[in-house]
Amino acid sequence: MKHYQTLEKVFQKLNDIDQAKSVLHWDMAVHMPAGGAEARSEQLATLSDVSHAIITDRGIKSLLEGAASEKNTLDAWQVANLREMKRRWQHATAVPQRLVSDLTRAGAECEMVWRKARAENDFKSFAPHLKKVVGITREIAKAKGAALGCSPYDALLDQYDPGRTSAQVDVVFKDLEAFLPEFTGQVLEKQRSQGEPLALEGSFPIETQKQLSEKVLDIVGFDRNKGRLDTSHHPFCGGYPTDVRITTRYNENEFLSSVMAVLHESGHAMYEAALPASWYSQPVGQARGMSVHESQSLITEMQAGRNPGFIRYIAPILQKAFGGKGDSWDAENLVRLCNQAKPSFIRVDADEVTYPAHIILRYYIERYLIGGEMEVEDLPDAWAQGMQKFLGITPDTDANGCMQDIHWTDGSFGYFPTYTLGAIYAAQLFASAKETNGDVVPGLERGDFAPMITWLNEKIHQQGSYYATADDLITAATGKPLDVETYKAHLKARYLG
Amino acid sequence: MKHYQTLEKVFQKLNDIDQAKSVLHWDMAVHMPAGGAEARSEQLATLSDVSHAIITDRGIKSLLEGAASEKNTLDAWQVANLREMKRRWQHATAVPQRLVSDLTRAGAECEMVWRKARAENDFKSFAPHLKKVVGITREIAKAKGAALGCSPYDALLDQYDPGRTSAQVDVVFKDLEAFLPEFTGQVLEKQRSQGEPLALEGSFPIETQKQLSEKVLDIVGFDRNKGRLDTSHHPFCGGYPTDVRITTRYNENEFLSSVMAVLHESGHAMYEAALPASWYSQPVGQARGMSVHESQSLITEMQAGRNPGFIRYIAPILQKAFGGKGDSWDAENLVRLCNQAKPSFIRVDADEVTYPAHIILRYYIERYLIGGEMEVEDLPDAWAQGMQKFLGITPDTDANGCMQDIHWTDGSFGYFPTYTLGAIYAAQLFASAKETNGDVVPGLERGDFAPMITWLNEKIHQQGSYYATADDLITAATGKPLDVETYKAHLKARYLG
Repeated sequence: MKHYQTLEKVFQKLNDIDQAKSVLHWDMAVHMPAGGAEARSEQLATLSDVSHAIITDRGIKSLLEGAASEKNTLDAWQVANLREMKRRWQHATAVPQRLVSDLTRAGAECEMVWRKARAENDFKSFAPHLKKVVGITREIAKAKGAALGCSPYDALLDQYDPGRTSAQVDVVFKDLEAFLPEFTGQVLEKQRSQGEPLALEGSFPIETQKQLSEKVLDIVGFDRNKGRLDTSHHPFCGGYPTDVRITTRYNENEFLSSVMAVLHESGHAMYEAALPASWYSQPVGQARGMSVHESQSLITEMQAGRNPGFIRYIAPILQKAFGGKGDSWDAENLVRLCNQAKPSFIRVDADEVTYPAHIILRYYIERYLIGGEMEVEDLPDAWAQGMQKFLGITPDTDANGCMQDIHWTDGSFGYFPTYTLGAIYAAQLFASAKETNGDVVPGLERGDFAPMITWLNEKIHQQGSYYATADDLITAATGKPLDVETYKAHLKARYLG
Repeated sequence: MKHYQTLEKVFQKLNDIDQAKSVLHWDMAVHMPAGGAEARSEQLATLSDVSHAIITDRGIKSLLEGAASEKNTLDAWQVANLREMKRRWQHATAVPQRLVSDLTRAGAECEMVWRKARAENDFKSFAPHLKKVVGITREIAKAKGAALGCSPYDALLDQYDPGRTSAQVDVVFKDLEAFLPEFTGQVLEKQRSQGEPLALEGSFPIETQKQLSEKVLDIVGFDRNKGRLDTSHHPFCGGYPTDVRITTRYNENEFLSSVMAVLHESGHAMYEAALPASWYSQPVGQARGMSVHESQSLITEMQAGRNPGFIRYIAPILQKAFGGKGDSWDAENLVRLCNQAKPSFIRVDADEVTYPAHIILRYYIERYLIGGEMEVEDLPDAWAQGMQKFLGITPDTDANGCMQDIHWTDGSFGYFPTYTLGAIYAAQLFASAKETNGDVVPGLERGDFAPMITWLNEKIHQQGSYYATADDLITAATGKPLDVETYKAHLKARYLG
């Protein structure tokens, strides 16, 4: 097994570089002064080049072949690790280095233009830059599709969610497309009949919110010896298993969204922190793709954090922290505030009920863009039509429409579906966890996430990338692959039950 | 000049990796949770390996030769850059990779043992680990000496202070050895006759100290768009020209040492921030070695910051910040507090008068250790004798004696002399700045460092590594190479004048 062992060393090195990049990204979002931006891009680009050179080195191919011939000397995890190595190598070698560099450069430029153009609602300035990014991404998608033996768009999906195909996504999204309009109408009707929940009014000191965030992390069980919470413009989770960095943001006029962001990111963090320790440095030790990662943030935020039982537990803690007075602080009002549905323009502000519509719209558009059935110029119209069709509203501006997301600016096509696939997996996992351990919901009701997290530790976190696909992992954990019925049942129970 | 241009690209890459490492080091000292230590060491080791592989690549030698033959097409800065490239390449290729890795590993282990052993005053546990580090460093020193055509110890000096020789250091240190005992006696006698300055008593809130630190940075002219101040266990300066990271530490019972640490680190920072922008990514754009770097921290802290004129300016600001009352807050008392001499065991706590003795002791010991004239076992006795000889005191424990510094634990032999060489250069530079610009001292008296900093910008900072050695740079700036007389004159004027 000497070929395999040599490969382990190579991938350990790649992992070290990935981790270093993760710290550099975190620092960029949390601490870096503006003047350091150019140097930081250079550092990240150089580290990417170094990694790319290592994995596309001519010797790797024969090491992979050699290791494949040693398979009978490898154990099951080593075989899985070799499969993941090969997957990464295929993605890296499929594309000429020139295209990768072109995308990095065009993406950085497009993102820079986007920041200004979005602020000024200026689609015209933005479009040519996005067009360039789309053009390069099409070439990359074609090259990867050829290497992986799948369609160009499926090759992009595979980058974020190994083995995922648009055929699978189509089935699920078609189902949701049929289900959601009527369901959403029913939810809105029901909530209208109950009247608006009372708004929490007041000023909520940032210092108090920060203490509250730490309290929330204690409840979830986040280990401060292996991670930390900071503040950034957009909440995110970075780092690696022994040093997970999560962030949130604060607004003095409103605190619930920050609490929910902390819950969301802590779900990502608990996944990272509980990956299999003996495989930290290897591909098989990493999370099983972005839809599973999103399932962990969403089970923690949506299934557990917005669960009425948990909100009833935390309501008096929130009230006490801010010295809140009046009916708006009643637990039942907070339950309604945390589960209020309302069609809106902006995806990141969307509720659980309307969120999938935002994703389905983006999924169709990016498929057509990559497939060449749509051009960047068509975006504003397509967006307006889609929003009208799926949510019954038309964005007032391009800034609040097709220019709202950062993803496409750097070529991250194929990522959006993982948000809704993650929501579906989250519903499946929560249902199975409840079924297996009767203490999951009572735990939430007493502010104890341990019963749920312990189940996830065993079924998801500790499995790393042992299974080849997200569906294999979820099937092993719940008995079923991607299952939109469980998700719909959750939505119906929570919003119409 | 195509060989030269290719080399520039290689060294830009190396610079990016160095910068990434610098951020990782900063994060480790400022933010990293304890659990992340092992992964961070791995990341740093891998990045070092990557850099080493790049610079020792076979192709570099012929590129250097090719570039040398193109010399007549290069301008003066490019020629200087080529010289610096060659210097780095010589250091890197002189030593087999095995020795570099051995030192990294042994150094990390020795440092870990040292932390515990120092806390427990346990030289016996520490000694075998230091012995290992010394053994490997001797081999490295020999290999580098052979490649550079100098003695093993001089090769170590050259790592931190290019071109520095122990022959130069000997001359200066012998002079100080003769000068300091009598001078120190006179200073102590004079200060005794004046009675002890009044201690500043009270509790000094950390928040107020932090605001004060930022005020001090404003005075020095530190640009927050290109850097930041944070808190760490030991003050340091990291980062790079467009993103300089400085740190200090706070103690609620005492604030002057933190103010002085901020001044010290800001001197390093102002150097980094004003290096020549068109050469940021190249060796010639870097600071001219550690003795010049230390001269910048010491001119800012010792020459300017502890200058009576500046202390008289800042005294009422300090008093107001803490609401201080009583005679101890009088400017003249603060002047005395900031310039009080007293022999003590610990180098980092030493004052300007007694500091050189700590360095001279370490210089002799490390030369003997590397030369094989002394063994690790001899350290405690040699330390006790040296401290008695140079400062008239004997450390109460090894923890307060030969185990107090981190430097040797990871093999940083040859670094200590730069502290005192920097102090000498600082005195020379301050004398020349004063002479050239009559507003330097009046500037300090009104809280304006700009006259001094502007002079340093031009004479030192903007020169990068254009000059081959620190002495060449200082000669160009002041008309003289390393000049102990100016330093002694400064000491006499400040402490006996």
